[in-house]
Amino acid sequence: MYKAPVDEIAFTLKHVAGMAEALEQGRLGDLSDDLVDAILHEAGRFASDEVAPLAEIGDKQGARMVDGKVLVPDGWAELYRHWAEGGWNALVAPEEFGGQGLPHMLNVAALEMWNSGSMAFALGPTLTMGASEALGTHGSAALKEKFLHKMVSGEWTASMNLTEPHAGSDLGVMKSRAERRDDGSYRIFGQKIFITWGEHEVTENIVHLVLARLPDAPAGTRGISLFLVPKFLVNDDGTLGARNDLHCHSLEHKLGIHGSPTCTMIYGDGKFGDEPGAIGYLIGEENKGLACMFTMMNNARLAVGMQGVAICEAATQKAVAYARERTQGKAPGWTGSGMSPIIEHPDVARTLVTMKALTQGSRAICYACAHAIDMSHHTEGEEAKKWAERGALLTPIAKSFATDAGVDVASMGIQVHGGMGFIEETGAARYLRDARIAPIYEGTNGIQAADLVTRKLPLSDGAQVRGFIGELKEIARAVRGSNLEGFGETADRLDASLADLEQATEWLLAELAAGNAAAALSGATPYQRLFGLALTGVYLAKGALADEEHGRDNRLALCRFAAENMIAETAALKDRVINGAASLTAARVLLG
Amino acid sequence: MYKAPVDEIAFTLKHVAGMAEALEQGRLGDLSDDLVDAILHEAGRFASDEVAPLAEIGDKQGARMVDGKVLVPDGWAELYRHWAEGGWNALVAPEEFGGQGLPHMLNVAALEMWNSGSMAFALGPTLTMGASEALGTHGSAALKEKFLHKMVSGEWTASMNLTEPHAGSDLGVMKSRAERRDDGSYRIFGQKIFITWGEHEVTENIVHLVLARLPDAPAGTRGISLFLVPKFLVNDDGTLGARNDLHCHSLEHKLGIHGSPTCTMIYGDGKFGDEPGAIGYLIGEENKGLACMFTMMNNARLAVGMQGVAICEAATQKAVAYARERTQGKAPGWTGSGMSPIIEHPDVARTLVTMKALTQGSRAICYACAHAIDMSHHTEGEEAKKWAERGALLTPIAKSFATDAGVDVASMGIQVHGGMGFIEETGAARYLRDARIAPIYEGTNGIQAADLVTRKLPLSDGAQVRGFIGELKEIARAVRGSNLEGFGETADRLDASLADLEQATEWLLAELAAGNAAAALSGATPYQRLFGLALTGVYLAKGALADEEHGRDNRLALCRFAAENMIAETAALKDRVINGAASLTAARVLLG
Repeated sequence: MYKAPVDEIAFTLKHVAGMAEALEQGRLGDLSDDLVDAILHEAGRFASDEVAPLAEIGDKQGARMVDGKVLVPDGWAELYRHWAEGGWNALVAPEEFGGQGLPHMLNVAALEMWNSGSMAFALGPTLTMGASEALGTHGSAALKEKFLHKMVSGEWTASMNLTEPHAGSDLGVMKSRAERRDDGSYRIFGQKIFITWGEHEVTENIVHLVLARLPDAPAGTRGISLFLVPKFLVNDDGTLGARNDLHCHSLEHKLGIHGSPTCTMIYGDGKFGDEPGAIGYLIGEENKGLACMFTMMNNARLAVGMQGVAICEAATQKAVAYARERTQGKAPGWTGSGMSPIIEHPDVARTLVTMKALTQGSRAICYACAHAIDMSHHTEGEEAKKWAERGALLTPIAKSFATDAGVDVASMGIQVHGGMGFIEETGAARYLRDARIAPIYEGTNGIQAADLVTRKLPLSDGAQVRGFIGELKEIARAVRGSNLEGFGETADRLDASLADLEQATEWLLAELAAGNAAAALSGATPYQRLFGLALTGVYLAKGALADEEHGRDNRLALCRFAAENMIAETAALKDRVINGAASLTAARVLLG
Repeated sequence: MYKAPVDEIAFTLKHVAGMAEALEQGRLGDLSDDLVDAILHEAGRFASDEVAPLAEIGDKQGARMVDGKVLVPDGWAELYRHWAEGGWNALVAPEEFGGQGLPHMLNVAALEMWNSGSMAFALGPTLTMGASEALGTHGSAALKEKFLHKMVSGEWTASMNLTEPHAGSDLGVMKSRAERRDDGSYRIFGQKIFITWGEHEVTENIVHLVLARLPDAPAGTRGISLFLVPKFLVNDDGTLGARNDLHCHSLEHKLGIHGSPTCTMIYGDGKFGDEPGAIGYLIGEENKGLACMFTMMNNARLAVGMQGVAICEAATQKAVAYARERTQGKAPGWTGSGMSPIIEHPDVARTLVTMKALTQGSRAICYACAHAIDMSHHTEGEEAKKWAERGALLTPIAKSFATDAGVDVASMGIQVHGGMGFIEETGAARYLRDARIAPIYEGTNGIQAADLVTRKLPLSDGAQVRGFIGELKEIARAVRGSNLEGFGETADRLDASLADLEQATEWLLAELAAGNAAAALSGATPYQRLFGLALTGVYLAKGALADEEHGRDNRLALCRFAAENMIAETAALKDRVINGAASLTAARVLLG
């Protein structure tokens, strides 16, 4: 069973991602080191002791529709209430609405642990947090007063309604429509699909954030508005009123995250109320709905990255435990009696250490991204801009590298279990089934790569990414200067991978400057992976450099393994970025 | 829906794997080019029109136990009978038992297509073929006369009973036992798990091949004997007699291949018959059971490799079809009206072409392996030895590279489908669920790597692998000599990957010669992948060189893409082989 690695998480937050420095500099308000530890321990306890034990029934039973009602798995409603009562929904929310105003870093660390416990469960709260952020940033005072308190407390959950059957990655073509009413409200009509936690009986109300198009809206993404559409209308005294004209038509039958209800939602077909049309309230300005969504997009993408980290951690723990207990054959050099634990076989050991390095690398990247977002909120002027850009640059890497790692590590975890890995009762297969959605939603990893290359590299005319690579090189230099034997050839390997990163980056910036977007996009996915691998090497090294007090052997060993057995792939990836476009273009002939 | 790529398969068999040359030289008996085509077309028709349409219900309904009976999915019993009536079970079997004595190459090509149609369905026949081979090679004349005809015809199916809860990869510790009886028969007692198609009602009898230990057997793998244990005893006139004392205790609940019953089998607990003990007949000699199994192991491993190829092909077809139809956004350079088909987006195109290259590379490797096995049967003396070694060398690569590709390609297929890929009704997720077992069974891919490095590289003191690499270099030279513009930088890339292969091979041979098995094993898995990637590049090039008559643009384009966008990874893999062991050893500290 999953046990939250609280100490490892705390170390990574503080000494790799930058929290210790920020705390020292007083950048994070009253937050103290002790409070950080206390929050992490309690979030970890909740994840290990309360969430994880309900993951298996959640998967097996799944969310289901019975007599028109959407039911979550047995025990989940109570679990959710415990979770909300613990104040966990409110960590980062503003204090005026009952939040605790804590840094995002703490929230993503907690999200990691809950997602390790059960990704399907943690998904619901993740959506509520995102919706709260969008409402808090763009909603009118009246709207916030009426809805945000209960969203922050978790008394009501929220959903995000973007996707339609023909509008997924491209929201510009959505058909859901909104009509203005004289009282300032709107009526919403349309169908939305893949709506996570769109309907359930866990809370007495659900707040839907819905994108729709006004009759006179411009075509495309500039004609989309964002509406708050509650399941039950809310009276001025805060009590619940009539049922709004929306409902869940059906649930999807999915590969994984079975416990999470994925709903097809129908708005305004007249099922409820006097006249057809779901009553909605505008958030922000008309036709600026997508911009409102984008303010929370970075955080939502990072939250999905945390799902990847979470699966990595949980799958690795499970595989290591199995490989220690399962005996089979005799490993080279085994002198014990009988068969060796399979962890002694070099191939199994290689797999497990690779899983650990991907877990820790993904975690560090995601936490560093959260740190940048936090710093952008706690600094001003040029410094705030630098940190905001850093967060923007890291977001697609965090989302894609960690979610790809989630799939790969979960698959490796099955392999370590041998035939038992393929049996559902073992639980290793669930991690792969759950993990597989994360590279897809909140923008596929291909879209992340396009975003990274075409929008993030050009930030500040390339100065952001160049400055960042410069900082990474400083760490590589510190590795060389440390003369720690345990690093092996790490310094050389980091230098090589950062040179690959630099060359690929400069090539892409030059292609973009020359207007060759197609050539740049051809190499976007290999570039994104290159960046993630290079960061993995550097961040593992940073952790090893920082860990003097704990005896750093483990960190040195993991870093050295990543340096000498994993990151050399950056050379081939750079080659694909720079030299791959011509053959990809030529190969279009194969695709008809 | 899957459509068997008969022409592509025929081309690869003939012009990449070596069948055309073998036919010309009269090495394959009376077999003619026309007959090859006719068999492939008919096997393809059966796969596309009869197997594939029943795959989805097979997955959804699954094999299940009802009132103690194991039921296969609706329609599968009739499908199996059609398949057996078509003579498909008999392709490679000896003519004296009703077989057609055709080359393995044809059989693996047919297996690929049936597995593309439904891997869970094709699994049953695959096991029967393996058991028939073991019985045909090692069984007594009387035993063969009594059982083999009906196994070859497919009138009875067969199962292979090796695994026990504590004996998976290491069969030496199995506990199932056999007792001698005065009439020359044996009584079998024990429990076997993960028995594919171990029980069903599709045929009136099932022939179990069971490994067990005699009371006076030596410890370990040298004390295991192989027994034929029929579900129903067979009278001397061929009619069925009493029910034997064996039964299926339960079915596994698996990640994939749901339609295939995976049974826990109990032998000799007294459920049937007068006295406890399932009646069994010795195959081969006492205590030589594992040797009997090994004669069919190469073919069984290759058959699993074909499952990987099969999933690659089917998942790629599905993803390409979806990417042509689904429109979203505007790709760079898109001049059509409205949104582009997603196949126009560079990242999606890269994914699809990678899927195609992995499919075709895996197919070529597996067919080349089958060709070597065939040639070893149709040649003599040193030549036969060379071909047998070639088959032995290629087998672990075929099994591992193709099954890893199956998982990767199926996962990419889901990604291409976006959110729809995660919905089970779409069918893309089934490929991943089915594919995930193939890297595990018939020897995990880690065990294949250990076999490749420690047993196959040393064949003929390294002359086999060195000779093979020499042949591969000839093809690379021919690419350079062809001066075909469409090859781009293929010649350089092939040279580089073959140099990596050669250096890694020599390093491993030197370590083995020096007695450093642990160091060699540390790099076994990267080496295995290196070999597969290098072969992919070379075989794609060989196909392009050979395809003058069809206009070779497509083959050149695919080869060039693989050369310039995929195989450069061999440099990093070589590095892991040669330089990776020290850091892996250091990282053991992390595994407790």
